[in-house]
Amino acid sequence: MKDCPVKYALETLSGKWKPYIIYVLSQNESIRFNELQRQVGDVSALMLSRSLQELEGSGIVNRKEFKVVPPHVEYSLTALGEKLGTTLDDLGQWGHLAYMNNKKR
Amino acid sequence: MKDCPVKYALETLSGKWKPYIIYVLSQNESIRFNELQRQVGDVSALMLSRSLQELEGSGIVNRKEFKVVPPHVEYSLTALGEKLGTTLDDLGQWGHLAYMNNKKR
Repeated sequence: MKDCPVKYALETLSGKWKPYIIYVLSQNESIRFNELQRQVGDVSALMLSRSLQELEGSGIVNRKEFKVVPPHVEYSLTALGEKLGTTLDDLGQWGHLAYMNNKKR
Repeated sequence: MKDCPVKYALETLSGKWKPYIIYVLSQNESIRFNELQRQVGDVSALMLSRSLQELEGSGIVNRKEFKVVPPHVEYSLTALGEKLGTTLDDLGQWGHLAYMNNKKR
């Protein structure tokens, strides 16, 4: 049972900050680094840029440089990243159930 | 942005064997340890029992002892575990897309 697509998805999405980053990106058409950092909260610039690089490598995040003065960079979800939308919502609903269930016991 | 339910779900489901174990359990009403090990494949008895313990701790897996002669144990998904069904299917479909997308590049 190698190359399970569920496992591939879980590995792609796991990491301390990735779910938050994807969530913030899903709420914004495109966003600058500093604003993204502010909305994710608590994350260091180093960790945020490392996570963004990994998400870019997985084809989930798009990085666009604007060569204006002063230059800046904006991040957005790719089409693949946007396809995650309802699946992550469902996963979040299940996570909420699981959390409530485990607190009760 | 603490206590994100998506992150809680991802953490609960992540691990080398958990997605496979949940998948096999979803295909069987209830299953004995040895048969589960055979269907997951490659997993050691130690790793399988450790993963099952964690999944039991998360309220996803139910462990039932049968006090017959010889005694045996069967594993099944709890109601919470069964609720994962379509969400994991969706996640798998997305994982397949992501995998194909990244292979192309």
